[in-house]
Amino acid sequence: MAIEGQGGGTAPRRLRLGMVGGGRGAFIGGVHRMAARLDDRYAFVAGALSSDAERARASGADLLLDPDRCYPDWEAMLRGEAGRPDGIDAVAIVTPNHMHHAPAKAFLEAGVHVICDKPLTTTVEDAEDLADAVRRSGRVFVLTHNYTGYPMVRHARAMVEAGELGAIRVVQVEYPQDWLSTRLEETGQKQAAWRTDPARTGVGGCVGDIGTHAFQLAEFVTGGRVTQLAAELTSFVEGRPVDDNAQMMLRFDNGARGLLWASQVAPGNENGLRLRVYGERGGIEWFQEQPNHLRVSPLGEPPRTVTRGGPGSGAIAGHATRIPSGHPEGYLEGFAQIYRDAAELITASLEGRDPDPLATWVPGIKDGVRGVRFIHAAVRSSRAGGVWTEV
Amino acid sequence: MAIEGQGGGTAPRRLRLGMVGGGRGAFIGGVHRMAARLDDRYAFVAGALSSDAERARASGADLLLDPDRCYPDWEAMLRGEAGRPDGIDAVAIVTPNHMHHAPAKAFLEAGVHVICDKPLTTTVEDAEDLADAVRRSGRVFVLTHNYTGYPMVRHARAMVEAGELGAIRVVQVEYPQDWLSTRLEETGQKQAAWRTDPARTGVGGCVGDIGTHAFQLAEFVTGGRVTQLAAELTSFVEGRPVDDNAQMMLRFDNGARGLLWASQVAPGNENGLRLRVYGERGGIEWFQEQPNHLRVSPLGEPPRTVTRGGPGSGAIAGHATRIPSGHPEGYLEGFAQIYRDAAELITASLEGRDPDPLATWVPGIKDGVRGVRFIHAAVRSSRAGGVWTEV
Amino acid sequence: MAIEGQGGGTAPRRLRLGMVGGGRGAFIGGVHRMAARLDDRYAFVAGALSSDAERARASGADLLLDPDRCYPDWEAMLRGEAGRPDGIDAVAIVTPNHMHHAPAKAFLEAGVHVICDKPLTTTVEDAEDLADAVRRSGRVFVLTHNYTGYPMVRHARAMVEAGELGAIRVVQVEYPQDWLSTRLEETGQKQAAWRTDPARTGVGGCVGDIGTHAFQLAEFVTGGRVTQLAAELTSFVEGRPVDDNAQMMLRFDNGARGLLWASQVAPGNENGLRLRVYGERGGIEWFQEQPNHLRVSPLGEPPRTVTRGGPGSGAIAGHATRIPSGHPEGYLEGFAQIYRDAAELITASLEGRDPDPLATWVPGIKDGVRGVRFIHAAVRSSRAGGVWTEV
Amino acid sequence: MAIEGQGGGTAPRRLRLGMVGGGRGAFIGGVHRMAARLDDRYAFVAGALSSDAERARASGADLLLDPDRCYPDWEAMLRGEAGRPDGIDAVAIVTPNHMHHAPAKAFLEAGVHVICDKPLTTTVEDAEDLADAVRRSGRVFVLTHNYTGYPMVRHARAMVEAGELGAIRVVQVEYPQDWLSTRLEETGQKQAAWRTDPARTGVGGCVGDIGTHAFQLAEFVTGGRVTQLAAELTSFVEGRPVDDNAQMMLRFDNGARGLLWASQVAPGNENGLRLRVYGERGGIEWFQEQPNHLRVSPLGEPPRTVTRGGPGSGAIAGHATRIPSGHPEGYLEGFAQIYRDAAELITASLEGRDPDPLATWVPGIKDGVRGVRFIHAAVRSSRAGGVWTEV
Repeated sequence: MAIEGQGGGTAPRRLRLGMVGGGRGAFIGGVHRMAARLDDRYAFVAGALSSDAERARASGADLLLDPDRCYPDWEAMLRGEAGRPDGIDAVAIVTPNHMHHAPAKAFLEAGVHVICDKPLTTTVEDAEDLADAVRRSGRVFVLTHNYTGYPMVRHARAMVEAGELGAIRVVQVEYPQDWLSTRLEETGQKQAAWRTDPARTGVGGCVGDIGTHAFQLAEFVTGGRVTQLAAELTSFVEGRPVDDNAQMMLRFDNGARGLLWASQVAPGNENGLRLRVYGERGGIEWFQEQPNHLRVSPLGEPPRTVTRGGPGSGAIAGHATRIPSGHPEGYLEGFAQIYRDAAELITASLEGRDPDPLATWVPGIKDGVRGVRFIHAAVRSSRAGGVWTEV
Repeated sequence: MAIEGQGGGTAPRRLRLGMVGGGRGAFIGGVHRMAARLDDRYAFVAGALSSDAERARASGADLLLDPDRCYPDWEAMLRGEAGRPDGIDAVAIVTPNHMHHAPAKAFLEAGVHVICDKPLTTTVEDAEDLADAVRRSGRVFVLTHNYTGYPMVRHARAMVEAGELGAIRVVQVEYPQDWLSTRLEETGQKQAAWRTDPARTGVGGCVGDIGTHAFQLAEFVTGGRVTQLAAELTSFVEGRPVDDNAQMMLRFDNGARGLLWASQVAPGNENGLRLRVYGERGGIEWFQEQPNHLRVSPLGEPPRTVTRGGPGSGAIAGHATRIPSGHPEGYLEGFAQIYRDAAELITASLEGRDPDPLATWVPGIKDGVRGVRFIHAAVRSSRAGGVWTEV
Repeated sequence: MAIEGQGGGTAPRRLRLGMVGGGRGAFIGGVHRMAARLDDRYAFVAGALSSDAERARASGADLLLDPDRCYPDWEAMLRGEAGRPDGIDAVAIVTPNHMHHAPAKAFLEAGVHVICDKPLTTTVEDAEDLADAVRRSGRVFVLTHNYTGYPMVRHARAMVEAGELGAIRVVQVEYPQDWLSTRLEETGQKQAAWRTDPARTGVGGCVGDIGTHAFQLAEFVTGGRVTQLAAELTSFVEGRPVDDNAQMMLRFDNGARGLLWASQVAPGNENGLRLRVYGERGGIEWFQEQPNHLRVSPLGEPPRTVTRGGPGSGAIAGHATRIPSGHPEGYLEGFAQIYRDAAELITASLEGRDPDPLATWVPGIKDGVRGVRFIHAAVRSSRAGGVWTEV
Repeated sequence: MAIEGQGGGTAPRRLRLGMVGGGRGAFIGGVHRMAARLDDRYAFVAGALSSDAERARASGADLLLDPDRCYPDWEAMLRGEAGRPDGIDAVAIVTPNHMHHAPAKAFLEAGVHVICDKPLTTTVEDAEDLADAVRRSGRVFVLTHNYTGYPMVRHARAMVEAGELGAIRVVQVEYPQDWLSTRLEETGQKQAAWRTDPARTGVGGCVGDIGTHAFQLAEFVTGGRVTQLAAELTSFVEGRPVDDNAQMMLRFDNGARGLLWASQVAPGNENGLRLRVYGERGGIEWFQEQPNHLRVSPLGEPPRTVTRGGPGSGAIAGHATRIPSGHPEGYLEGFAQIYRDAAELITASLEGRDPDPLATWVPGIKDGVRGVRFIHAAVRSSRAGGVWTEV
């Protein structure tokens, strides 16, 4: 560990950012704003923060937004910003899942770059339609599968790409939580309410909310694609209309085999996203609750712990970090990395140049489409009794 | 942690123990002997230690056995010991899997108590036949699923039985190793050779060798029974005729759902048997490589670490321990517990009395039959493409 | 763990912040800026970022500062900002240690609130002089002993205050690093150069740079005051004029006894700040590299892990957190908490009201004076052969 | 990890072992017996198990000893065994500390090899007198500083000897427990009673009981000798006549500096013996509660975990192990290693040959004398106010 200042790259100006959703009582909107602020590449200037106009206005005031740019709905924001010389460059969409498709598509068509929360949409059709819109627009589309912003996750992917593990054989990925072990959705808890409501969250509950993160992480790191899965989705809490536990077997295009477990009813687990990948020549393990470490086990050698910024951690991880090793970076920094990379992609687009290649590791529309396909395949498989199903 | 001497219960005499298998070059035979010695309830007095007569003799000499009681094969031992007034009370069978059924059955029929290594047999028919033999004989039959001898595993089971977790929902069990990541069986390594040879190990490779341990542990702790499974068994190492990686989904009779993973090709894992059980009211986690700890997470309370002999660890664990908390007991002590409990069962049988109820938690013939059914169900499921299969 | 949005408290406006030091090549300046940004209570508007005028200008441009407010030195900034209606409310001083006293005093006397890096000054006289200046000025003075911004550190202090551990008996605190195991200062590494130069760092090397953090943390959490110490400071790397390893015994005013170890030559340690406190009725352990967890061991009960935001973690920790438990917060968030609390103190001062009591847990001038006294006592003790010395 | 049978070395016969102390209610006697049994190199044939004749007899019956060889006191055993053709080869002395010197000396003078519990004696004079007796006798004398029997402790020493860490700079050793946090000695707990009674335990309480283990471990692994120490011993529990917490600074003959902490009043600690050693080129860390792992941090490389029997663990560790890596060995196996090595030393002595060099790493009379000097130096230092004192 060496304490060193990082050279400050010059940015010509901050990108102007608007937000759809994320008003009072929301969770992920605040995370997006902190993430956008951390590296100072954005000015947050406009919002349609709530579908309730009064709440939208009050939320904007909380955030010191210009009242003129606090809009009652996203359509108004789209029109209002389009009419300004200093209109937004990009929009962050942080509404519940069923409210991603329409604003994302509209902003893209208006030439605004989009940063969207996951999962992409609630239906495969919407996902593919949005993919078309992205292609037609030529605009940047970033999906906040934020765990891919962690430096050691990127280091893991770089190791696999470089062949350090050899051919991948086994993938074990899991994301246990415990916060929905009881019927929290009946207590007025807003997050629990929409995340267990099929009308807002989609057909998948746990599998969509966190299973997609696990799925995307496995594909992101291994570079493999899941071709088939056999899933068992369960609603353990009585009366819950969506799954709160998802277990499945995975077959990858490269011959690897995997297990995926996501749960919201596993007491003692907070956000226990964990990925383990084993190849012919080595294994790696990563755990979200201790994200600065990657356990690396070359076959026939002692396992070692590579730390963010420590020995053996190279340029890929270095790109995604801010402070010396041993000083933990966490969830917000990983999330901020998605925003920082998105800023580079958007700035490069605005400037008509190629982006820094290291910034291209952010998840985008393809991850989004795969994620929605994954959710629907898992639900289909489970409803059919756990049969093998194409993704 | 309080340092205290344990009261020494009086035993009238040591049980006379013979052994089938376990000569020079064997692995598990030596473990059985250390396990039998630790608590001083046995005198090891006779052996048919190898199918090679000269090796049998030399192995006996290594172990300071009376040459008259070093037999060239188990049939000779059976006859020889039957003819002595001080003949063996019990026999330990530690041969490869295909050599369990015949001697176990014969010794039972001769009135000798049997301690047998797992898995029970290579076929379901043999397993059920042996179960009949046990029933008819009235003798003690103990199967060395040694992990159930660990104090914190028993504590976990006691917690589930007492309802501390509520209804069980999710079971995650795994047993990764890495020692067969390459074709070790071609290097002359004796253990690798027989464990990858279907003629000696049976139809299951990894699933039989360690998958059965994981399966038995899950049933032992939860008290549930797996009714169906869907399995994907893979031979990743080219040319290996049995599986070296097993992944499967489990359905329990009590409605719980589970994932089981066993692997011998996961670099960085030594003997990573891990069980996690989640119920309505709490979760527990146990890891074989740190066996003196049990992580207990009552829903809505901070997770705690109960240690063998420490606060919160009661009589059940205390029965299976020897030294103060904080001084680690390990694999041999867990294995020894199986022998210690077997000694109590056998002594009680010899004395015509009921055994100490705490000694009855050792695995026996029923675990053995279920284990063989499990292996065959997994193989059938996998061969049929991973379909759901009755156990 | 429950995902919930946090209510957004209304702030009337962002505080205007200037910075002394922190230009290109610096380390801690960038940390201060990220910390100031995270919670959006500050607008960074002015800087005297380097003692080199050209570097100061370029650094300001990197940071998108108004060129008119990029000053060549802090005296110019003091004058320039004083003449503006929108002049700075507060200044962050992030220069090497010998450059804290003069600007801090001057800004205080000009009515500007001060946030200063640690250790406070290089001499006890300067420290006390600055303490007088703070008193006279009536302004807020915050010292960035950033580890006290971690939620679980505050939770630990709250537990001690509430008597949950009973009378404190033993304090073990340590801060090992390894980055100065070789003569890094001769390689042109700027951070190593000034931190091992007595003219800039002061009489203490390791003991001043990180030993003070350990010392302050121990006093912060336990509420005790170290009255005497016996220290052994060593320069293991040949030719280094300041210590790179510090070991000492501590006597507290409440009868507790302690050991403190700080090292920059302990291979395998990055920023291993660890505090363990043991009282009559329980013990606690905290580790900076896994800051979201606090191990709590009530005497006679199993040790438990209290997590930031998880069960058993209350209002004190909640005040210092942003996201749900299980999503790790790290070093920057802890640092940001110091800034967030400073913003509340400064805003309250500007508004002529009492601050939120929870914001008063930030370190200030008293911690600063004690830290400088500590460094000098340790150096005196060591030079006298490790004798007991008053702090 | 490879499962392999270990070749069984031929031993001509079991050594005949007697025991002084270790009857009903004792703690360490049972540990010695299990340790002696595990590797089958001893036959336990005689005992003077208690100073109470009836208890001695009953204890012998518990252990199935020949009643003729259950002696009422050690003098009787000495006489009785001397008169038998099959008299004991070796005696294990497991009485409280004040009862080591007399029987150890007498048995040595009678030509019986001695295995003695630690600390050696209660006075330096007795320690030196016993050292003379050992020299004169030419018999084997082994002191059960059992932690040196752990394979990874020996591996650590081998690494230091081989220069893998370079010159040693810093040694951090600690042994916290919590079992004496209250006045347990007043409850009738026999172990607490004698260990806090100066008449039986000697001048040092905690420092003698477990501080000596920490001290011996530090010297054993580093090969350095502590020349001076400055100690602060405290009796936190009111009315306790010996220390229950010991903190001290250490100076080694090779220039290394150290801290040592031993405590019996640190809630949440069971037997937390931990050693960390840092040299110019690397660091190592070992923890008794997870004894199968050694953390190794070569400077500038990622830290790695070397496991007993795993990659990077060589012949030295292999000599002290029984089962494959990943199957934990614990306290009893480490203790048994002392007995196994003692058996080799004694057998070699009986056979008039040089012992296996690997067996010579057991602690002996020199460790014993140093341990008693250490205790007395620490007590003198502390009584003089924590001044530096020669060991």
